[in-house]
Amino acid sequence: MLWSGWGDPAKARELPEQIRTLLHDLMGVSEPSAAAAFDEVRLPSLSLPDAAAAELRDVVGEAHVRSDHGSRVRHTRGKSTPDLLRMRAGDGSEAPDAVVLPGSHEEVLRVLEVCGRHGVAVVPFGGGTSVVGGLVAGSGVIALYLARLDRLVSVDTESMVAVLEPGLRAPDAERLLGEHGLTLGHFPQSYEYATLGGFAAARSSGQASAGYGRFDDIVVGMTVATPTGTLDLGRAPKSGAGPDLRQLVLGSEGAFGVITSLRLRVRRIPAETVYEGWRFESFAAGTAAMRTLAQSGLLPTVLRLSDETETMIGLAKPEAIGSGGSGCLLIAGHEKDRHGAAAALAQAGGTYLGAEPGQAWEHGRFAAPYLRDSLLAAGATVETLETAGFWANLPRLYDAVRLALLGELGTPLVMCHISHVYETGASLYFTVVTERGLAEWENAKRAVNAAIVAAGGTISHHHGVGRDHREAYAEEIGPLGVEILRAVKERLDPAGIMNPGVLIPSPPPPAA
Amino acid sequence: MLWSGWGDPAKARELPEQIRTLLHDLMGVSEPSAAAAFDEVRLPSLSLPDAAAAELRDVVGEAHVRSDHGSRVRHTRGKSTPDLLRMRAGDGSEAPDAVVLPGSHEEVLRVLEVCGRHGVAVVPFGGGTSVVGGLVAGSGVIALYLARLDRLVSVDTESMVAVLEPGLRAPDAERLLGEHGLTLGHFPQSYEYATLGGFAAARSSGQASAGYGRFDDIVVGMTVATPTGTLDLGRAPKSGAGPDLRQLVLGSEGAFGVITSLRLRVRRIPAETVYEGWRFESFAAGTAAMRTLAQSGLLPTVLRLSDETETMIGLAKPEAIGSGGSGCLLIAGHEKDRHGAAAALAQAGGTYLGAEPGQAWEHGRFAAPYLRDSLLAAGATVETLETAGFWANLPRLYDAVRLALLGELGTPLVMCHISHVYETGASLYFTVVTERGLAEWENAKRAVNAAIVAAGGTISHHHGVGRDHREAYAEEIGPLGVEILRAVKERLDPAGIMNPGVLIPSPPPPAA
Repeated sequence: MLWSGWGDPAKARELPEQIRTLLHDLMGVSEPSAAAAFDEVRLPSLSLPDAAAAELRDVVGEAHVRSDHGSRVRHTRGKSTPDLLRMRAGDGSEAPDAVVLPGSHEEVLRVLEVCGRHGVAVVPFGGGTSVVGGLVAGSGVIALYLARLDRLVSVDTESMVAVLEPGLRAPDAERLLGEHGLTLGHFPQSYEYATLGGFAAARSSGQASAGYGRFDDIVVGMTVATPTGTLDLGRAPKSGAGPDLRQLVLGSEGAFGVITSLRLRVRRIPAETVYEGWRFESFAAGTAAMRTLAQSGLLPTVLRLSDETETMIGLAKPEAIGSGGSGCLLIAGHEKDRHGAAAALAQAGGTYLGAEPGQAWEHGRFAAPYLRDSLLAAGATVETLETAGFWANLPRLYDAVRLALLGELGTPLVMCHISHVYETGASLYFTVVTERGLAEWENAKRAVNAAIVAAGGTISHHHGVGRDHREAYAEEIGPLGVEILRAVKERLDPAGIMNPGVLIPSPPPPAA
Repeated sequence: MLWSGWGDPAKARELPEQIRTLLHDLMGVSEPSAAAAFDEVRLPSLSLPDAAAAELRDVVGEAHVRSDHGSRVRHTRGKSTPDLLRMRAGDGSEAPDAVVLPGSHEEVLRVLEVCGRHGVAVVPFGGGTSVVGGLVAGSGVIALYLARLDRLVSVDTESMVAVLEPGLRAPDAERLLGEHGLTLGHFPQSYEYATLGGFAAARSSGQASAGYGRFDDIVVGMTVATPTGTLDLGRAPKSGAGPDLRQLVLGSEGAFGVITSLRLRVRRIPAETVYEGWRFESFAAGTAAMRTLAQSGLLPTVLRLSDETETMIGLAKPEAIGSGGSGCLLIAGHEKDRHGAAAALAQAGGTYLGAEPGQAWEHGRFAAPYLRDSLLAAGATVETLETAGFWANLPRLYDAVRLALLGELGTPLVMCHISHVYETGASLYFTVVTERGLAEWENAKRAVNAAIVAAGGTISHHHGVGRDHREAYAEEIGPLGVEILRAVKERLDPAGIMNPGVLIPSPPPPAA
């Protein structure tokens, strides 16, 4: 993973000429911004107590406590645009003191015990792909890097569940399951690097969510190491016995503990997936068609609709960026008979565009983060954000987000797509390109957060809360919702060492 | 609702002669047991402080605080067999001091405030159909009867969600939604009397769960009145922002607060539902067929398989009790094209029995509780219990429950069916008939609870925890799971007035 950007540097790509022209003509972007050199990233001085470091080495072994420059830089922050801009500027101020690699659930428990005793905070680190400020370390903080927890533990093809470890990257998990003819069917944008533990801790949702559900639908059981002990949840697909505590750990972003094992629903690898494109006159018409599919039980496996701007720019097909057409492009991917869905799309006013746009989308489906790097290198600021709401509320949410961005950023390029649908509503995923810098972007982000909350949407459909959405999330769930999270955190993590600062706002200072 | 049994006394039914013979010949049951008279039920003396009663009258109005004999008897306990046997014996020792009927969310908040101040405990009471000891009141306790919260507040046919109040009984909710052509599709055994709030608070699952999901799948939002304020949850079908707090309230059984409003997914009433019967050679063969349907996405709306004993007794068709056949009867109900499912059932070795067994099942689908009353009146003890697990674990669970029952009760009649299936597992629902009395049944129940936990199943798939499953539930979620629930309860209900005794075991006494 590129420390100052995304992915494999060999897959980096030049910006198409049309995009360079657009950036220049529309936004006046032309200044190329060079990234700092890896060796020059400025890191905070080490403040891990010697005794703590020695005890950690005892627990996980000498080789698995790393404080060298490279290890620290590579576990600094996540992959939001502000994260990348700070890394490109050589700012490593949120680097961990050490990167600690436990090899088992028991080692995680013992690491948490040592850290609790020494007042060392712990940021669980999977693929490092958070885009919401979920991986902020700093002095006196370790990154708990889960890469050694990378086994496929067991497969049960009768129940169609497999037990896997959280440090497995998605492609490795798919490779291991693939040997049994199985798949998770979970393919988010971060697929190439994200880990199973991260998917669970941040409630990931993948591009095939219409067919496979969200990752929280895929998790049927889990083991969690917390500072006060072990949680072992999930004895049945569903239970009527009390609250579903799995759903309290899912989305907890490391604030309660560390997921050390996952029992996941698996499926047979499909014989074939057919991707195809459809054109709709307008975003509203395409949205109505998606709603019809979701409410009639005719959902394909992948369903994604770009609004007019995203269609024009061609972002749904990053490989063909800049060559988009008019109207709104809808991509459908079918693993089963496509006829019911196709008939409904045609009935709803869609024009069938054949397989090519679908194949182009599939070919470029993990390319967008590379494209962002190219845009950042060209001097533009580009970022994504997302929300979800009930169908009747989507137009209001769409307008609220765009209005907030226009109000703060002047004339940004704002594109949107719907890629996760439910019977009762859907997500909205925005990509923003602006010539403005980091500070102005952060103001705009705050304004958008407020607009989403005011318009009745959720602050995130699948990126999570981290630090960037913390205050908006508190408004979303209300003071009593926050109190519930605090109560759980205080019970599981009384010393407050688990990923401090994410998810839950600090309590108000006690009254004088 | 019959105070000492189930439902409308006009629907009471005589036991068929075959069953009387079977009870007599197999079990030696012959002693008819007469129920006490309504007026003779012994109630505890009133201990509600006068000031509290006066304040409650101020909040909800004079007419809505009721301490007459009839009101108290009618809100004593739920509908488990031990509950009914105690009521039939004239034992009203767990009657509430008063039945309080709030008319709004604000009135619920104010009632909780008054009760908190006076140390009066509150048992939320919907349809009164708990079968797990979820409705135990007693001196110094009020029943918070939600019957006045009975409105359909709004319908959104674009998002396909409706806002309904928790005191609505299921048939009334269906009638109100039916005026809009809509349905919840939620038809549990308790349908005739259970309320929407109860469905949510106890994680109900209905007979059409294969098509409509469980009630926790149907809830998209909720408002909850707690002693420390209001929770308002659910801004989108799904969210990636933090833990899903809806899933913490679902299944909380009134221990955290009172659900005062529900935002529910609705669907169009289907044009037609076709019920049909299939015969399988064995329970194992039928189970394998159900698994195939669940894992291939071919699920009908209703799917239910009786084991050999239940098939022989004919309990799947209570209207035709005693006239069952050999093998195992599977009932399928289809709202859509039945061909895919039918082909899979035939392929799996099923023999099509035509529509008659399906229609008989549908005709008698809510009759089992009436049948129980007849059996109790005939001197038999009859009760149901259930669990769920992953497919590979179902045979072990099935054997463990039967073995525990045989070990404790000698030669009870034990019948089982599977009526809720998932890709990764299913529920097991047992009906037990024995000549033994209440004390022996309660011993057997404890043994079964332990056996379920030991065999890796969940202690309840949809009956809930109440008091009867409390200790087994604590084993299921472990000490840290219990601590989470305690932490949440202490934060939301610091005085401990909300349905004390259900769900969460009392904390161990502090160390000396």
